[in-house]
Amino acid sequence: MKRLNVLLLLLIACTFVQAETGYELWLRYTKISNTSLLQQYKQQLASPVVLGSSPTTSIIRAELSTALKGLMGTNYRLASSISSSNTLIIGKADATNILSSLATKDELKKLGEDGFIIKAKPGKTFITGNTDVAVLYGVFHYLRLLQTNQPITNLNIVSVPKLKLRMLNHWDNLDRSVERGYAGESIWDWHRLPGYIDQRYIDYARANASIGINAVALTNVNANATILTANYLEKVKALADAFRPYGIKVFLTARFSAPIELGKLKTADPLDNAVQQWWNEKVKEIYSFIPDFGGFVVKANSEGQPGPQDYKRTHADGANMMAKALASHKGIIIWRAFVYAAENPVDRHKQAYDDFVPLDGKFEPNVMVQVKNGAIDFMPREPFHPLFGAMPKTPLMMEFQVTQEYTGQATNWVFLAPLFKEVLDSDTYSKSKNSTVAKVIDGSLDNHSLNGMTGVANIGSDINWCGHPMAQANWYALGRLAWDYNLSSDTIADEWLRMTFSNDASFVQSTKQIMLNSREIMVDYMNPLGLHHIMGTGHHYGPAPWVSNLNRPEWNPVYYHKADSVGIGFNRTSTGSKAIEQYQPDARKQWENIATADEKYLLWFHHASWNYKMKSGRSLWNELCHQYNAGVDSVKWMQREWQKQATKVDAERFKAVSMLLNVQLEEAKWWRNACLLYFQTFSKQPIPSNYEQPDKTLDYYKSLRFPFAPGN
Amino acid sequence: MKRLNVLLLLLIACTFVQAETGYELWLRYTKISNTSLLQQYKQQLASPVVLGSSPTTSIIRAELSTALKGLMGTNYRLASSISSSNTLIIGKADATNILSSLATKDELKKLGEDGFIIKAKPGKTFITGNTDVAVLYGVFHYLRLLQTNQPITNLNIVSVPKLKLRMLNHWDNLDRSVERGYAGESIWDWHRLPGYIDQRYIDYARANASIGINAVALTNVNANATILTANYLEKVKALADAFRPYGIKVFLTARFSAPIELGKLKTADPLDNAVQQWWNEKVKEIYSFIPDFGGFVVKANSEGQPGPQDYKRTHADGANMMAKALASHKGIIIWRAFVYAAENPVDRHKQAYDDFVPLDGKFEPNVMVQVKNGAIDFMPREPFHPLFGAMPKTPLMMEFQVTQEYTGQATNWVFLAPLFKEVLDSDTYSKSKNSTVAKVIDGSLDNHSLNGMTGVANIGSDINWCGHPMAQANWYALGRLAWDYNLSSDTIADEWLRMTFSNDASFVQSTKQIMLNSREIMVDYMNPLGLHHIMGTGHHYGPAPWVSNLNRPEWNPVYYHKADSVGIGFNRTSTGSKAIEQYQPDARKQWENIATADEKYLLWFHHASWNYKMKSGRSLWNELCHQYNAGVDSVKWMQREWQKQATKVDAERFKAVSMLLNVQLEEAKWWRNACLLYFQTFSKQPIPSNYEQPDKTLDYYKSLRFPFAPGN
Repeated sequence: MKRLNVLLLLLIACTFVQAETGYELWLRYTKISNTSLLQQYKQQLASPVVLGSSPTTSIIRAELSTALKGLMGTNYRLASSISSSNTLIIGKADATNILSSLATKDELKKLGEDGFIIKAKPGKTFITGNTDVAVLYGVFHYLRLLQTNQPITNLNIVSVPKLKLRMLNHWDNLDRSVERGYAGESIWDWHRLPGYIDQRYIDYARANASIGINAVALTNVNANATILTANYLEKVKALADAFRPYGIKVFLTARFSAPIELGKLKTADPLDNAVQQWWNEKVKEIYSFIPDFGGFVVKANSEGQPGPQDYKRTHADGANMMAKALASHKGIIIWRAFVYAAENPVDRHKQAYDDFVPLDGKFEPNVMVQVKNGAIDFMPREPFHPLFGAMPKTPLMMEFQVTQEYTGQATNWVFLAPLFKEVLDSDTYSKSKNSTVAKVIDGSLDNHSLNGMTGVANIGSDINWCGHPMAQANWYALGRLAWDYNLSSDTIADEWLRMTFSNDASFVQSTKQIMLNSREIMVDYMNPLGLHHIMGTGHHYGPAPWVSNLNRPEWNPVYYHKADSVGIGFNRTSTGSKAIEQYQPDARKQWENIATADEKYLLWFHHASWNYKMKSGRSLWNELCHQYNAGVDSVKWMQREWQKQATKVDAERFKAVSMLLNVQLEEAKWWRNACLLYFQTFSKQPIPSNYEQPDKTLDYYKSLRFPFAPGN
Repeated sequence: MKRLNVLLLLLIACTFVQAETGYELWLRYTKISNTSLLQQYKQQLASPVVLGSSPTTSIIRAELSTALKGLMGTNYRLASSISSSNTLIIGKADATNILSSLATKDELKKLGEDGFIIKAKPGKTFITGNTDVAVLYGVFHYLRLLQTNQPITNLNIVSVPKLKLRMLNHWDNLDRSVERGYAGESIWDWHRLPGYIDQRYIDYARANASIGINAVALTNVNANATILTANYLEKVKALADAFRPYGIKVFLTARFSAPIELGKLKTADPLDNAVQQWWNEKVKEIYSFIPDFGGFVVKANSEGQPGPQDYKRTHADGANMMAKALASHKGIIIWRAFVYAAENPVDRHKQAYDDFVPLDGKFEPNVMVQVKNGAIDFMPREPFHPLFGAMPKTPLMMEFQVTQEYTGQATNWVFLAPLFKEVLDSDTYSKSKNSTVAKVIDGSLDNHSLNGMTGVANIGSDINWCGHPMAQANWYALGRLAWDYNLSSDTIADEWLRMTFSNDASFVQSTKQIMLNSREIMVDYMNPLGLHHIMGTGHHYGPAPWVSNLNRPEWNPVYYHKADSVGIGFNRTSTGSKAIEQYQPDARKQWENIATADEKYLLWFHHASWNYKMKSGRSLWNELCHQYNAGVDSVKWMQREWQKQATKVDAERFKAVSMLLNVQLEEAKWWRNACLLYFQTFSKQPIPSNYEQPDKTLDYYKSLRFPFAPGN
């Protein structure tokens, strides 16, 4: 209570007119404080010109004016025709010889639609690409160099995105609720569209363009067919029109049973002529509103959604039927592989693989199969999905979860780039060594021209977009990795912190360490040693490893941890569910033999005895106690490190993060206490006395209810 | 579409780093542009001191520093002890003789807890009151003088609020949905309370304090008992702690059946000992968290809510039972009179009066009865509620609706001060002439010491708080009128525009005219001539006068307009429902005789024939056509007037309002066309050819559905 009052007084004392709300994201463009650097920049930027006259060119001019005014503290008048005095020349390669001569025709061709070139020598800088959008990407890259105080006098940058489709999936419902949303309600104000174009839409598009995101599915994969009615398509068109000049294509989720719900047909059977005809007409109608519509994202026969299996057809039958309707319009189908069935007694881990591998080669060329990073469900740590590398004839799209459903929701500071990287860098061994997941999804391993990565968005109507001030970094990371998965987590955190907070070297160094460690810390206090899916029912908030009474066996935490008097963990080896056999033999090696297995995944693949001796020398039970406590201690470390930044950060965000770290510490203790007390009922062993002992009973933790938890 | 694209390009072109989002409300504190005035102000403000050391004093200092820095463009260092050089001396009267000698003891006593004094002669200004909160009010008043560019060298202001309880009712649910909310979700982030104190709470409290609002009911009158559990009371306490230094007391809505739902009792009968005991204990528990808890707001036996009548007890029995539990803690009960029953065949207009007048004199002294401004439900225009003046032994609290449920929701620019004033200035004739509604609610007519006014809040999580940029004015107006109901709508609009937009004289003059006319315009295109309750079902969005199939007769629009082949309107005179007899004879005169009746209320009280000759000389049918069209034309006038302000307003808000005016015009036409086409099926007369003819059919308008309309 004392602490709360002090924070309140601080909040009161620091109420400024223009506070740092976080609304500006990483596009704050605050004035460069290093005066000698500022002087250099001013010389290099003395006379900028932006060539061209498209809506995208207008955007480039507006962004550049705003950015330079903010960064340099001077108004810039941007010319639109070239003169010999220009020091910064921006435009499409075909706008002037000066730009087209920067690269050979072949080099320009390799840039594709989105790649850009930035070349600079002292006093002269060029930014170009083949399209206005590519130039926009180049300008945002250049601004990032300024924002992060990089040298700009000698540049020779050629940047081509590794993936063509760099996407966000919004799980946003038409009533503006957001499934698994922890940042307010949906930013899509459907009711006031198409007449009212919220400034948010523009700023959302700016932010996406600044990190290369070029596609967005507006609606929840648990889909409502209403979005496909003319009334709503007019609204979708208004958003598509707003996003187009930023290079962003719009996708929608398609409810498989829409022909019944909207078309009054008796069936949605994909082999039925009337159904096919209905989709053909519907797609034609959509393109009459949105000529560059991206296509559909489909969740079918999963968690209660309708799908082709309702008619004894395969996922390929369903996907191909829609794909054919889209093909002539250059639209694509993104068909999700996240399927599992209550009736199927097989380990849920195996079901998507079992369903989809037999369909490899049977999909139309404009179908991508979208695969979650792991086989269960966006857990804090999960081995890569066995489908990666197992469907060489099908382009697989990566689905990451940016919103923190299982990774701390609205209150925990967790930087997810290390999780994304861990998956992307995983070796599937599908062709040979170094057949990484990244190479599967970029299409290079199997020669696919369709390729992409999507993130389930963490964006909502909160002023700071993402709820937790630090959660913006995960949106940023998704975009940056979709552009170049070789970027390190360190680089991404570094860029984001400098742009979002400050270029102060000690601030960046310390805070980056918090970010880079935060995911591992969260694993420690939530799901150490390969534990998974032991969260609260429905809302997925907090721990509930004891839950065993849900309708579907694979919804129960006890299904996943299988704690008993002998030990704990899910035996997925050849003596168990055999899920491990879905991986290549060389990939299996890291997990297969309990004696040599990577302990981070131990309980994912093995049921180990409570007294199993870990590499640390501790018994499994003691190691569990150790890791849960290490997680809690590490949150205290995060707090200490953050407190040191008080003078380096604006008061508003400093206090917001401080308060949330207090909450995070309470939640880390809750996870630790609840899980250890529960698992102790099986291990029958004490929590070693050198650790903080739970201050509440297991019954207390079991009694907690959160009827109004967000995102449910 | 063309227009949309132009707006889009404008939006793009004007993306600045620090845009005018509307978040700052009327507390923007932008620099004073009139340089000679600025010079005068600087002299008067050269050396400010704020005496005292309470949390409220800290707030005064912070607000004053922020405001002066913004307004004057200079940093001020505020002293906390007095010196002879001080030019602005702020503090409680008992802080120094200099302040206490400004007024006699008697004069100070008359200030009460909230009143303040501002005295100034050239070079010396004093702001004082009996409490720190009164001083805070005085400072905000003084800042308003600066913000609106008033002279400040000769001031002799003594301001005492007319009402003690100046309140907002939030119809906010625990899942953050807001009943009849059109500005995003609830600003109460219950999930992250008590640990996370959103800066929004502080800025909300600042805004309220700046207009004198001193009480807030956090939760929906359609109440959920969960708010009364310890887990939630801890969260309520955190808000109460945040609001306390701003002089704001917290109230909760109490679900009458809470003893059953939370206490596991078999009954909630107010005369049952165990029930009384349960409320006593619960109230004690609440005060253990919040020592200055305000009390309960209760909606009972209304629209499905539980209440004392479920046990054959009266509203007085229910209210008194809770009031007794609160009395020793100085809490109060605010019992709503908004009741009507499906089983009761009597005109809904009459039911609250019938229920409550017999209870006059039977309530405990700490009970107030909260009465909506009219007997039906916050209609665009409604005669004052007949309960005002009819319960002299009971303090009646005014309930206005600030959120625009029936007055344009999220898209219409409607300034509600003229509506509020119209009601407050209405003469009940309960004692004699000039027994205005205002005198009933301020207690002066019947010597009540409890008195107050509340508004159903229009506040949500939207960046600009209220959805429509102009809707903030209604929050402002509610607060200002609760402080002083003698303020004119003109004054309120003038203040608000200057602070929220600009002191530019021509801007203020033109935009104020839009505001002052906007409510009458809305009446014209929605509910002319006393029509009422003809809106869409459930969501209340748009027109639906044809609806006749709802379960309860008094939920159907046809119940209210009673259009038939003869004419239209609800006969509430002595030959009809006799509702008019609930008013004093002198009050009735303005409505009773159809020949002399105020035509603004014609169809409220009379069923008039289609060919009834109006004062304009037109037939009733033609007058209806005339007024609906006048409403539409007036929206076009609003558009023209607003377009003239393009250079006077920041680009963001100018465009937002422009887009919304386009939507408003479409909606005005929709109301006109749908209502006239429908009423035409009875009048069988043409819409005179000089008016724009409907471009859609009645069937089209009847077919419209809005399953995801907000606030429902």
